[in-house]
Amino acid sequence: MSPALSILVIDDNHIRASIIEQGLHDAGHFRVILVHEMDGLVRRIAEIDPDVIVIDLENPNRDKLEHMFQVTRAVQRPIAMFVDQSDAGSIEAAVEAGVSAYVVDGLKKERVKPILDMAISRFRAFSRLTNELAEARSELAERKTVERAKGILMKTRGISEDEAYRLLRKTAMNQSRKIIEVAQSLVIASGLLEE
Amino acid sequence: MSPALSILVIDDNHIRASIIEQGLHDAGHFRVILVHEMDGLVRRIAEIDPDVIVIDLENPNRDKLEHMFQVTRAVQRPIAMFVDQSDAGSIEAAVEAGVSAYVVDGLKKERVKPILDMAISRFRAFSRLTNELAEARSELAERKTVERAKGILMKTRGISEDEAYRLLRKTAMNQSRKIIEVAQSLVIASGLLEE
Repeated sequence: MSPALSILVIDDNHIRASIIEQGLHDAGHFRVILVHEMDGLVRRIAEIDPDVIVIDLENPNRDKLEHMFQVTRAVQRPIAMFVDQSDAGSIEAAVEAGVSAYVVDGLKKERVKPILDMAISRFRAFSRLTNELAEARSELAERKTVERAKGILMKTRGISEDEAYRLLRKTAMNQSRKIIEVAQSLVIASGLLEE
Repeated sequence: MSPALSILVIDDNHIRASIIEQGLHDAGHFRVILVHEMDGLVRRIAEIDPDVIVIDLENPNRDKLEHMFQVTRAVQRPIAMFVDQSDAGSIEAAVEAGVSAYVVDGLKKERVKPILDMAISRFRAFSRLTNELAEARSELAERKTVERAKGILMKTRGISEDEAYRLLRKTAMNQSRKIIEVAQSLVIASGLLEE
């Protein structure tokens, strides 16, 4: 982990915030921004644009926790969260809400750095998997769209599959577009023209 | 988390093992099996077939850690691992090796249950994503194979795409196989016959 990471610490308890800050300083992290205000967090985070986020909630009630999970869901960043106690339901909710390290009853300054490292590693592993899934699904969707477009051309123009594909490709080249874009337009437009 | 979970605890330190065991008992978990022997673990785990695995390594050297990561990679189970200290590299290696909760310097009996809950939640979330990725990729691969098979038939038999597909489907029905199996066989066999 590079020491030049910018780290946002969100905590409304000043004593606990200083424990976290001390742990970060001891580990060589000095680009630390503290935020004590819990309202308007998503916008604040977007403005600060940190590499990593540490959230300490001490002993949150269900509303406060749910509010924070709305924030973590919206923010695509490695997030480490400290709480003093938690039930199994909240732990599952934290995982679902994209919290990369959810630490129950474990705040001490020596542990801040390994937990931050963990949050970053886990966030990367999860992001990689999520991206691979998005790519595979988008390739599949594109393939289906091109197949549908070819089918439409074969039927309306009475041409072969090869000819349909060449026609899509030629149109794409002439319009400086991707084949998938032309195919998509054809599928949408043919839907408009049909009864 | 159901109290009927079977939990395997791997630990060569009897005092630390009893802290973990006590934490599990306090949380209502009594199906706990202790293993102190670190050799032949993959086979032992397969025999015991636990729902969750807790590994305590205290202060492992690099070899011991790497050996344990070979075990965790092989075992598709929620795994919580305790170590007393760790560098960023080992933390990343733990994530890569499928350790669902890697806890540095945080062993105390009150924390065993939330960490176990966390390991299970994270393992499920990761498994779901991994399964979705495998499905998307396999659908993509099947689609490509069927397309290649249609292409082979269109070329060798001089038939249309529709006819090629109908021929694959008819052959599959006659042989009580899936279309993808027939397509796969055709692609493999046509490779054999070509120069």
